[in-house]
Parts: sequence; C-alpha cells; structure tokens
Amino acid sequence: MNPEQEKVATGILYTDQYQLTMAQFYYQTGLHDNEVQFEYFFRNCPDYGSHKAGYCVFAGLEWLLDWMARVRFQDPELSLLKNQKTTSGRPFYDPSFLSWLKKNGSFDRISIRSMPEGRVIHPNVPVAVVQGPLAMAQILESSLLNHLNYQTLVATRAARVRQAGRGRLLLEFGMRRGQDLGANAGARAALIGGADFTSNVGISHVLGFPPKGTHAHSMVQAFMALGNSEFDAFRAFSRIYPDDCVLLVDTINTLESGIPNAIRVFEELRKKGHQPKGIRIDSGDLAHLSVMAHKMLEEAGFSSTLITLSNQLDEMVITQIINQIMEEAPIYGIDPDQVINRLVLGVGTRLLTSSGQCALDGVYKLTAIKSGADWKPAIKISETPAKIINPGFKKTWRIYDERERATVDLICLDHERPDKQEEIFLHHPVEQQTMRILNKSRVSRMECLLEDVFLQGRLVKEHPGIERIRKVRDLDLERLDPGVKRLINPHIYHVSLSRELWDLKQEMINARKKMNPDHERLPG
Amino acid sequence: MNPEQEKVATGILYTDQYQLTMAQFYYQTGLHDNEVQFEYFFRNCPDYGSHKAGYCVFAGLEWLLDWMARVRFQDPELSLLKNQKTTSGRPFYDPSFLSWLKKNGSFDRISIRSMPEGRVIHPNVPVAVVQGPLAMAQILESSLLNHLNYQTLVATRAARVRQAGRGRLLLEFGMRRGQDLGANAGARAALIGGADFTSNVGISHVLGFPPKGTHAHSMVQAFMALGNSEFDAFRAFSRIYPDDCVLLVDTINTLESGIPNAIRVFEELRKKGHQPKGIRIDSGDLAHLSVMAHKMLEEAGFSSTLITLSNQLDEMVITQIINQIMEEAPIYGIDPDQVINRLVLGVGTRLLTSSGQCALDGVYKLTAIKSGADWKPAIKISETPAKIINPGFKKTWRIYDERERATVDLICLDHERPDKQEEIFLHHPVEQQTMRILNKSRVSRMECLLEDVFLQGRLVKEHPGIERIRKVRDLDLERLDPGVKRLINPHIYHVSLSRELWDLKQEMINARKKMNPDHERLPG
Repeated sequence: MNPEQEKVATGILYTDQYQLTMAQFYYQTGLHDNEVQFEYFFRNCPDYGSHKAGYCVFAGLEWLLDWMARVRFQDPELSLLKNQKTTSGRPFYDPSFLSWLKKNGSFDRISIRSMPEGRVIHPNVPVAVVQGPLAMAQILESSLLNHLNYQTLVATRAARVRQAGRGRLLLEFGMRRGQDLGANAGARAALIGGADFTSNVGISHVLGFPPKGTHAHSMVQAFMALGNSEFDAFRAFSRIYPDDCVLLVDTINTLESGIPNAIRVFEELRKKGHQPKGIRIDSGDLAHLSVMAHKMLEEAGFSSTLITLSNQLDEMVITQIINQIMEEAPIYGIDPDQVINRLVLGVGTRLLTSSGQCALDGVYKLTAIKSGADWKPAIKISETPAKIINPGFKKTWRIYDERERATVDLICLDHERPDKQEEIFLHHPVEQQTMRILNKSRVSRMECLLEDVFLQGRLVKEHPGIERIRKVRDLDLERLDPGVKRLINPHIYHVSLSRELWDLKQEMINARKKMNPDHERLPG
Repeated sequence: MNPEQEKVATGILYTDQYQLTMAQFYYQTGLHDNEVQFEYFFRNCPDYGSHKAGYCVFAGLEWLLDWMARVRFQDPELSLLKNQKTTSGRPFYDPSFLSWLKKNGSFDRISIRSMPEGRVIHPNVPVAVVQGPLAMAQILESSLLNHLNYQTLVATRAARVRQAGRGRLLLEFGMRRGQDLGANAGARAALIGGADFTSNVGISHVLGFPPKGTHAHSMVQAFMALGNSEFDAFRAFSRIYPDDCVLLVDTINTLESGIPNAIRVFEELRKKGHQPKGIRIDSGDLAHLSVMAHKMLEEAGFSSTLITLSNQLDEMVITQIINQIMEEAPIYGIDPDQVINRLVLGVGTRLLTSSGQCALDGVYKLTAIKSGADWKPAIKISETPAKIINPGFKKTWRIYDERERATVDLICLDHERPDKQEEIFLHHPVEQQTMRILNKSRVSRMECLLEDVFLQGRLVKEHPGIERIRKVRDLDLERLDPGVKRLINPHIYHVSLSRELWDLKQEMINARKKMNPDHERLPG
C-alpha cells in the first residue's frame, strides 16, 4: 500500500460494506437523521477452554475516540464510492447521498457515554452508549467493535497473567505473532491490563514507557559461527551493557554452559563495580531451571540478579511454574519465595493473541430511537433468551456491599433512581422467577457507570494516560470478589435488571409474539 | 495517537527492543557490517485442535517489502533513542551508534530471496532468506515475523474454508473481531487464500475489489421501533436496492416471518422486472434453514436467489452444514446439490483470528555468516532435535512426481544440483536412519523455490496483485496430493535434507557437543 491507500484503508472506510448500504438506505428513506442509541456490550467473558475469565478489563476507548475525531468522508473516499456499481452496473450510491456524505459524513454529531478504560466490566452491561443520527451511528459500528473488542480482550488476559504472576514484573513480548499492526494495540492493552513493559519499541516510546529486551539466540550463534564461544559472546555483551546485562542462557545448554558462563561474566562485572541484571531462560523445564539457576546464582553470591522466563507463558503455565517451584525448591533446601521473587515473566503470543479465546464477543445493538421528543425502546428478539437485548435508554448502577466489594451491576431505565430506594429490586436478566431484594442497609455505595467522553464530535476531556488507567484497574480489581477473580471456574458476578426494565422487556417480547407471524398482519 | 506518534509506532521502531540492543552490541563489537543470512520458516502447520492443516499458503510479503522500502531511522526515532536510559541512568545508546544509524539505519543494503505469495509452503522449508549486514538484518526480524506470520496464518485458513465450501462464494466478514488494524492485513490474506470478497470497505477498494455486504438486524429493529414491520423494512430496502436485494431474514423468526416476508418483497421486485439477489441467515440451524429456505424459494419460483449463511462459520462448521444438507434435503424430496449450489458463505471471526490456532510459529534464524569470502554455516542447538535449525547457505528444490504432483521439498546446500543427479538422496530431517532414494525417472520436474524479490533495498519487480497471487495458489493446490489437503488428520508432506546438508548438520552438532560444557574450554 502506498501512503494514500493506507489513509483510505484506515480512515472512515474502515467499516463493513453493510453499514454503508444501510446508511444510504436510511438516507433514502428519510431515517438517516433520526437520533438513536446503540449500546456496546459483550455477552460472555472469554472462555479459554481449560480456564475462563470471571470479568473483563475495558480498553481501547482512547484510540477509538481519536480515530472518530480524525476521520471523515473526503474526496478520496467519495470518489471510490462513486465508482462502486450495483449488480446491474449502475452506480451503487446515489449522487444525492454522496453529497450528503460530503457534508455530513463525519462523527461530528455523535456523542458517547462510556465506562473509562481500565474499569472492570461484566457481560450484558452497557460499556459504551453511542448517541446520534442513525446513518453515522450505523457506519461507526464496525470500527467501534474492532477497536474495543480486541483491546478489552488483551487487557483482560493481561490482568489474569498478572494475577497468576503474583506481582512479578511482567513484560509483553508478542509483537511477532500479532495481527500485523494490531500488535501495537495489543501492546497498549497489555500495558493497561497488567504488563509492566513491552518489548515493542515504537509504541512503547509513544506511550511513555522504556521498551524492554535483552538479546536473542542469534547473538550467541553469530559469535559461534565466527569461531568464538558462548562465553565470548556474554563477555562482549557485558562490556557494552554493564548495568543492563541480561544474558540468555539456553542457546547451548542452560545448566552446563549458559548459567556457568553467565556467572563468570557476572563475576567480572562485579569486580568492576557493576550490578549484573540477570539471566533469561527461554526453553526447557522453566520451573526446575529457575530453582537450579537460583541455587547457582546464590552460591556465586548474586542474590539480586533476576531470572526472566519466556516461552509460551500464560496464566496457567505461570501458575504451574510457581506451584512447581513451591514443591521443588525445598527439596534443595531453598525457600521457594526467594526463587519466585527474582522471576520476571516475558509473555508473548498467548497474551497478544489471547490464545484459547482469540475474540471478545462484543456487540453493538440498537436500543432506542427517538420519535418526536420521546425515546422509543428498540429490541432484538432471539430464540435464545440470553441473546434478547435489554431495550431502551438505560443507566447502569454498580452496587457495593458492606465490605466495599462490588456485588451487582444493576441495569435500569434512565429515569430510575435505585440509590433513592430503601429496597433495591434485582431481577435475573433471563430467568422469569429469579429475583431478590437488596436492603439499602447492606449497601455501602452505588455509582452510575457511564460518563460523557465524546460530545458532538469532540473529546470531553484529556486522555488519562496509561498510569491513571492502571489506577482505575487496580481499584476495581481490589473491589472485586476474589471468587470472581479465580482463574479457573470463577464465581459469576451478578448483573441484574430493575423491575421496570424487566417489565418493559417482557412487554416488548410479548407484543412481538402477538404480531407474529408478521406477514399475516400485513396487507398483500 | 497523533499522526506523528503513529508514524513512529509503525515505522522502523516497529521492532522489539532486543533487536536494537543487539544492533548496538554488533556495532560496538565491529560485527554490524558482517554479511549474514537469516531464514524465515515455520515449524508446524496450524493445529486447530479438532483439525489440522497439512500445508500453508504464503502471504504477507508485499506489505513487508513496502514497509522495508519506506522506513528508516530519522530524527524522530533517533531523538527517542537518545533519551532512552540504562539502569544506572546513562544514555542507553552511544552517540556514535546513533550517528551510524542515522546514516545506515535503513534496509538499503538488505536483499531478500523469497517464495512468491500464494505458494503452498511446508514446515522447516526456508520461505524467505534475508541477506545483508548483521545489524540491520537483526532489526528487521520482528517486523518480518509480524508481517509474514499473520497473513500466512489467515491465507492458510481461508484456503481450508474455501475447500470445505466446495467452490461456493466465500466472503470475509471478520473485521469487528480482528486485532485493531490487523483486520486489514487479515482481509488481504483472506482474499489471497480463498475468500472471493471482503466486507471491509477501505482495504477492499485499495485492493481493487468491490466490498460486499447487505444489511444488519438493526435496520429491521429501527423500522420496528418506529411502529413499522419487518415487511415494511424489507420492502423499503428492496426499493433502494432492487438489483442487489439481499434480505436478512432472522431478526424475528426465519421460517415464519423472515423468509415469507422476503418472498413477498421478491415477488414485488419480479413484477417490476428485477432479479432478487437473495437472503441471509445468521442464526439457528443453518443447514435445516437452508433446506427450508430453498424449498420456500423454489415454491415461489425463485430458483436463482442465493442463500448467504453467516454465524461462527469455519471449515468444520461448513463441512457439517453441507453434510447435513446432503442428508436432510432428500427427506423433503430435494436434490441437495441444488441447495448447496445457492449457498454463499460469510466467514468472520474464525477466519480472521484463525480460531483454535491463532498464531503461526514462524521464526527467523541466523543460518550463515560471511567470514572473508566464505559463508560459514550457523546453527542453533536444541534439546529437541526437531528444533535444531538447518545450517548454511541453502536452496530448496520442489520435486514433482510422474503425476505432476509435488512429492517432496528437498533442502540442499547452495552449490548442490540435485536436478543433475540420476538418483536423488532424501534424508529425513531428524531421524538418523530414515532416508530414501528417488530415481530421476519418477520425477517429472524440479524447481528451485526462492526468487529475488528485494535487492539492496529495492523491489525487484512490481507487486503481482491479488488475482495473480490467486493463480499461483490454485496451481500449487492443484499439484498438492489430496491427502495433504485433507482437513482432518492430513497426510504429512515430505521435507527432506540432501546428504551433504545432513552431514554438515551432524558435523556441527557433534562439534558443538565436543566443545561442551563450554566453560571448561575457556580461560578464566
């Protein structure tokens, strides 16, 4: 692609064809300017197969909003559309629609209420609500889903890996297995969700973090191909990076060659007054090798050098490595915590691709449409009750219990004020008979989850930056029940409907049933 | 990100930190200008869990080469590097290295021999060989892997989905679940591997294809929220798109509402002289619904309207749908082929994310380094024999049997000429005792697989474009044994080493064993 093509491929035409088909259809039927609400939410927490998330961490909003503020239909886009043909060979787009797009084809009239990035989010709860004229709100769908689904998927995975790593330094290494430039979004999401640093140089600098990395096997190979040894390679490396000397010890044999050579180089560094940084192990039994490496480093008097582990790590592998260290270290008379505390975790492919569950099922659904001064609720019926959307202009309240833990997300209609009620009614989102009453005495706090982030095409406030987003994340994770955070078979966080919303939903479902089959009701 | 930041994040700093750490190290040790060869190859065909690929389809080269030709270290990049610090707070990069990068920090001295895109490729066979000065060839690694791994992964999956779809029109719909802008690369790779069209508008236009798409449930929902019916929505849609009228029939109830309403609208279209295009079904039992839809459409006299299926399709789901149609159609007295022949397949998430196996394990390994006028082979030993690389400056020959089918890829040293031999010796890549002799009489043709594509920073020829790449793919797939193409448990395609290469590899492994443990050989 040349730069102009790239601009087209990443601009406002970064959408699916059916959005444009519908936009023109709305224009032709006079519906294009109708004010509507679309909701972004996901249906299921990622299920990785042998393990499953109990919550998600929201990410991707900043890049979406920046994209929205930047893109619009201009001549390059319009001339491409102009040449698109119908099956019968006529122009697919009517000139009047293209003229309309030229004037109105931007997100200048779109507003968004959203959760901030870093927040813990749950299935079926509106995470972002888009409001604006139907045609442009429709065109937005594909790019919004693309931006939010992936970063949320990775931020969620990163939070889990961080949890498994028990606070050990976590590095994102996955660029080589990312989906083309998606690796940049993945690195950002990893930093939001749980990674401390990334190896991806450009995006790391852009986000204000120093990129992290050591050396590869090829460095040792190159030295050896020229008749030198692993030790020669390590020594030369240590001379160039005396204060950042992390040596990859598994090119030949970790225990018999790599670690002994590294220790000898570290001894040279120490003599010169430098503090060796650590070693990296990228193959073999990482738990066993960590215990052995710890033993050898301790014996040589290097008690603060780190051991970086990499190679297909994820939350389950890390959990197993740590468990094995707990079992195996005492056999050698070693305190396992000492081994664990010197670990650094390099996580690549399985974080950036969220292996096991490589997509979040986030969707964008029409929930309300303005008719005159009123918002009319919209619904989509499905034969699967859990897939019937919650209709109408809504608010979500997160309710915290006596222990200051989040206990339920309550989805209400916009005008409802559950915070003013003595008894809060919670209806199961699908099961007719399942409901409960929460007495206000058991509630420590309630908060409304959405905030204005984009008003009529403009950002409402400055982007918070990764560090502030991480604080949001930490606070939310702290207030989440440990059962919900369990890495395997987590407790299900409650998401409930208010009685009013439940009743509206049933009413709409019943009305739809009555008028069905639709074709019998209508004239020929 | 603002545009400048985006330029940094997608420019030459789109690499991993350790590449720069090594590049500076090579500069400081005087190795940076050493001519080297790195090979790109993958180790295993994608294993999706319940099914597995027997081959891959190569893609991603064009975008990699365009990126290489465009990027270089310039002031924005250099000033970021200048500010990077070591642990002790000193500049991480030496000014002399930064000056060198300013002059030499591009791929102007890099050359690449590669397979062309669209070719069928196999594990451990060099797909691309990068040659040039060590420092810049090293910096290239991450971006090369990022570009080639993902597109090859998706092109491979698309070829499988196309095979399962028995030549039915295949549409790529996955943008909303792609990794941010990676969705564009995914769309391109899908078009190369097997998709006929994509719904992704921008990239589709850029690649010269009309984007495809119909309408969403939200169109029907919007009409209904305003007091109209599904039929009203369909009818209005048909008036705007009389020649491209594809109606999504599952918003309410596919058989009782959607299809009857669609047929009534199609009847109106027919009266006006238009040919209705088809329906789309996005939920429910797609096989059963296809049979029923076919029956209803036939009864109404619409024998050429298409039935587009979507919803979590992949090669296995498509295979099952087609099998079910074969079983179920005759129960209704319908010829299953008639149903199958009107299907169009919309494949999204599972294609673009290659669900089940969301990364190709492609690697980039140093295989040779020039010392004076000679190429010295480089090797990386591993405790897993299959992971020991094939050393040296090499060529790969693809050998076709009497039936014009590809029978083996033979990896040789560069100077070898197996095409001049009467008996071609084929050694198993790992197993000591496994070898065979192929008599030339059984060989119809041999071809060398790599060609020059990038010479000293310049593209050797024009990009072929998707259509020509598809022809390459079709030709290669035709020449592949049906057993290797089997979707489940495929036959393993043979990749062999020449005797000379096998001997060199063993010699290097043995030499490495002798000098081990390395630390005993070296002075203190």
